[in-house]
Formats: sequence, C-alpha cells, structure tokens
Amino acid sequence: MNIKDKLFMKNIVTVSGGTGGYTILSGLKNIPGISISAIVSMADDGGSNKILRDEFGVLPPSDVRLCLSALSDHPEVIRKLMNYRFEEGFLASHSFGNILLLALERVTGDFATGVEIASDILKVKGKVIPITKDRAHLSMLLKDGSLILGETNIDHYNFQDIGIDKIFYENNVALNESAKKALIEADYIVLGPGDYYTSIIPSLIVDGFREALLASKAKIILPVNLTNKQGHTMHWKVSNYVNVMEKYLGKIIDYILVNTETPSKEQEERYKLEEGDGVLVADDFKDSRVIREPLLSHLFFTYGKADKIRDSRSFIRHDSEKLADCIKKIIEKNN
Amino acid sequence: MNIKDKLFMKNIVTVSGGTGGYTILSGLKNIPGISISAIVSMADDGGSNKILRDEFGVLPPSDVRLCLSALSDHPEVIRKLMNYRFEEGFLASHSFGNILLLALERVTGDFATGVEIASDILKVKGKVIPITKDRAHLSMLLKDGSLILGETNIDHYNFQDIGIDKIFYENNVALNESAKKALIEADYIVLGPGDYYTSIIPSLIVDGFREALLASKAKIILPVNLTNKQGHTMHWKVSNYVNVMEKYLGKIIDYILVNTETPSKEQEERYKLEEGDGVLVADDFKDSRVIREPLLSHLFFTYGKADKIRDSRSFIRHDSEKLADCIKKIIEKNN
Repeated sequence: MNIKDKLFMKNIVTVSGGTGGYTILSGLKNIPGISISAIVSMADDGGSNKILRDEFGVLPPSDVRLCLSALSDHPEVIRKLMNYRFEEGFLASHSFGNILLLALERVTGDFATGVEIASDILKVKGKVIPITKDRAHLSMLLKDGSLILGETNIDHYNFQDIGIDKIFYENNVALNESAKKALIEADYIVLGPGDYYTSIIPSLIVDGFREALLASKAKIILPVNLTNKQGHTMHWKVSNYVNVMEKYLGKIIDYILVNTETPSKEQEERYKLEEGDGVLVADDFKDSRVIREPLLSHLFFTYGKADKIRDSRSFIRHDSEKLADCIKKIIEKNN
Repeated sequence: MNIKDKLFMKNIVTVSGGTGGYTILSGLKNIPGISISAIVSMADDGGSNKILRDEFGVLPPSDVRLCLSALSDHPEVIRKLMNYRFEEGFLASHSFGNILLLALERVTGDFATGVEIASDILKVKGKVIPITKDRAHLSMLLKDGSLILGETNIDHYNFQDIGIDKIFYENNVALNESAKKALIEADYIVLGPGDYYTSIIPSLIVDGFREALLASKAKIILPVNLTNKQGHTMHWKVSNYVNVMEKYLGKIIDYILVNTETPSKEQEERYKLEEGDGVLVADDFKDSRVIREPLLSHLFFTYGKADKIRDSRSFIRHDSEKLADCIKKIIEKNN
C-alpha cells in the first residue's frame, strides 16, 4: 500500500465477544479502504474455554478463534477447520482453533504473540487483539448483596429483578498495550453486537479502557442487539441499550443502528421456546443518531452435537453484509 | 516458473518414515531446480499415532507431520508449532501437528486431501504424499512360525536370530495414485535413511509399489543407515544393507551413500548405553556405485519428556546439509 492510500485508510475497531465479533468482522472484512482491529473479550470461562483455562492456565481462546476465522483470507475450508469441533475421543467438544491457539501460546510463551502468528498463518485481514494479557475473572455484585463469580455463572443467572450493584474483575485486569493503541488511533469504534453483561461490558471495565476511549477521537457505533436476554435485559427497548452502554462508556454514542426487519416464523417460534420476550424491531426511541435499516440474517443457525453450550447460542443474528453496508455508508458520509 | 525452467526441473522422490524423512527433506528443500515429492509410510502404530488410530480411526499422522514441517517455508516458529508436544491435561503427549492433520481429515473427509491443505497453510515446498489411503496393519512372520502383529511390536522384537519368513500387511494396502504418479515421473528416488523393517521396507511392500518402480526410469539412491539396530540389523555392513534393499526392490540401486565420519565420544557413549553394536563408518564394500562422504550430524539430539517413545528415537543422525549436498552433486554430474 502506498502512503497516500494509508492516509485515507480508516481505522475501525470492534469490541466484541465471539459470535457477535464473527458476524460483524465477516462483513467488515469486505469493505475496501479500512483497517480493522478486533479487540476481543477475555472474560469467557465456559465450555471448552473452562477446560483450557483450568488445565493449561491459558487465556480463553474461543472468541479470538472466531474473530481470526472471520477475518481469514483463506478459502472456506480454513474457517471450517478453525471452528471444527471434535466429536470423539480425548478431543471431544474441543474446537481445533482453540487447540491451535493453546499450542501457539506454549511455543511462543505468550498468548498475544501466539495470536499474531495465527493471524499470519491464517492470512488475517486486520488485527485480532486480546483485550488483556491478564487472566480475567469476571464477577457481579447484586443489590441484595449476593456475589456471582465467573462469566458463565453470570450468563445463567437471573439478576435483572434484583438489580446490579457492580460488575468487576476479582483481579487486576489491565488493557493490553496494542488494544490501547488501536483505540486511540481509531476513527470508528463498533461496540457489539453481543450479550451486554457477559460480552461487551466486560471489555469496557478493563483497567485503562475508559481512559483510552477518552483519548480517542473515534466515532462510536452501537449496533443494538436484536433480542433481549432472559434474566439480563428482558423488556429492554433501544433506549435502555443506549443508556446503559453510555453509562459504562462515560461517552456519547454517535451512531445507533437499529434493525427494522421482522424475523421469520421459524426463528420466532424457536425464540419463544427459549423464553425470550420478543425481538427488538425498530422501537419508538426518537433520536437523530438512530439509523434504521434491515439488518437481520435469514439464515437458520444450528450447532453441532459436540458443542456443549449450543443451547445458549444465539440463533437470531445480524446479517454480516447488511451490517457492514450500514457502517460503510456512515464512513462514506463522513469522508 | 516458466516452461523452460520446468523442463530442466528434476523430480526427486523420497521414500521414508518420520525422522529420516525430516532429515533428508530439510536439506533437499534448499537445492534449487528440483521438485520434491515425499512419499510417507503409513505403517506407524506407536505412541500418539496409536491413540489417534484407535480413537479416531485416522491414518497415522506423525511421519507426515515431520515431512510437512521439514518442507515448510514458514519461519522456524511454525516448525516448532507443528512438532510441539503438549505436556499437560487431556492433550498430554500429543503433537500439535498430529491434531491438525486429524482435524483436516475430519473437515475434508479424506486424509490425503487434508495433507494437501496442510501443505498449503504451511507453505510446503514440494508434495507430501501418504503412501496409501488404506489403514495399514504391518505384520511379520518369522522362520519359527511366530507372527508379530503391528509396527510397534516389530520395532521392539528381537527377530534377527530367528530370521524373517515374510513381512506383509494383514489387509490389502494399495499404493496411493499420487504416489504412483510421483514414482513413475521421478528422476531420482531416495530410499531412507530410516529403520529397515519398520520404516523403509513397509513402503516397498505396498501393493503396486514395485510395479510403479519398474515403470520408472529414476536412478535409485540409498543413503546407508549410520547405525545398526538392536535385534534387527546387528553386525550388518554396507553390503547387507544394499543386498536386502535390492531384494525388496527387485531393482538395482544406482548410488550408495556411505558416511566416512566417526561420531563424537558423547554420541558413541550414549550409543553404547543403548546396546548398539557400533556405528557404520565406510566399510570394505567395494563397488563403483559407492560414494563415500562425511555425512554425520554433530548435533546432539534430545527429546522432550512428553515424548513417550523418546528412548527409541535415534540420536546419531545424518546431517541434512551434507546429505543434500551429496545428492546435489549426483544430479549435477548427470546433467
């Protein structure tokens, strides 16, 4: 790339967990003239991640794996390889990509360096950056004084009626220097999509994140979640998502992306079975920052039997291309 | 590459097991103007391979992994990654590269296709070809009527005094079409180095190998092993190695490479501990086909604790560069 191209290059940073990160990055990858940095939460402690954290003391690889495979410029088979989940023997329920990241951590002595090498092998367009190099033990203190330990326990806990006093890490979890640099140099920061209390907010409360955000001139984009989560965000409307996010950010969101498409009958029926309270379709929130667009994927997502936590995975998702297109329009308008 | 270069390109085929294949390919890789096809034995059923064969029904990946990493054009860290052997947890004693090949077999549905994709990811210079797509169960019938089942059991069996009646596969093990093509189109075929009865001969007895060899105009090169193997080839001299190999080949060997260098004291002492009967240094075998050169590596090989079969691994080895240089001279002389 020549210097002129680099000058016009826009830096996009995404802050996400796994599935949401995969969705948005798969689309952003195809926008020309942008440089992507995917900052990935390290709070995950469920499923295969739990075993890898416990037995190997490694940072949780699943979300990184998803972001790497989303941004890989290799043919489709490499994405399949990265996300292939073994079904038999001593490897049952583990993803190949997680084992790759574990091995690279062992060989290089450092998880973040391992991710860089994986990016090289996988011809990743952009950077995938673990938000911290510290092992992160997420906790939540509720208003009735009860303490929930661990991301997975928070994920399954019905805390909405009790109310949150504080979400925090048990230990000191500091922002990775590369993540700090990416945030400060960003032109746009996209928050989510993803579960609020187990995927997005855990990144915002990492020590140094807010400071980096304040030092950045980036415009902030929030693709509002498509569904409300049982026990966490039931009955929420767009205004709730915006207000809570801004509270944790300490900054105003610039663009609020709201979906206008209704899901298919099949999606809705499946959704009701899971006791969701309805899908968020463009509600009455009046604000000039809101962009209303059809953003829904009509793919019907299924998960393999080897996936131990498949029941809690999302099946109503954003469409990667529509989301990317919406963000592309924002960038073009500002140029 | 243009057509003219391709015309002058020499096709080199190696027939080997793991460590020997790694040694020779690491050197051959750096010779300009040659195209390498590494045909790999599928008889291995020990260590990690045993578990992967038993639990996943996959072809044994270890020898393929070693050949891939030898030919990889990636930086050193990727070789380290491929051969990294996990030390803890459910992955203990398994090599990362074996798990990669297993996952690729699962994703593509075919081991040989998986090897092709691994070659692509690893930027392999040349081709790595499993000798067969069939699961190979090696057996040996001795002159006293006893039958040894499996490559690992043969490896540890002291059969030399009893004598071999027959070495064969229990099942039908057919030559892979790509291996056949490589043999027929070869200009040079290098046999070994490697254990005779568990690594080299198991390839020669694959159904269709001899026919392919007879149809080929390739010159055959034999780098004679550096050491004799307890219970298999004790007290052998160069003439024994040549005669036995020619019997299995049904063809005359064109070049016999014999080492003239004596090992270090450290190497020899370690060797005596392992009850070897002396190192083969250029003996009295008179033949115009013999090329005598210093071919010994002075590296002192060690193996990790996680390697369950480290005690049976070789520690007196050919030097990759010296061996490659010797082969390069043969090619140049014939041009």
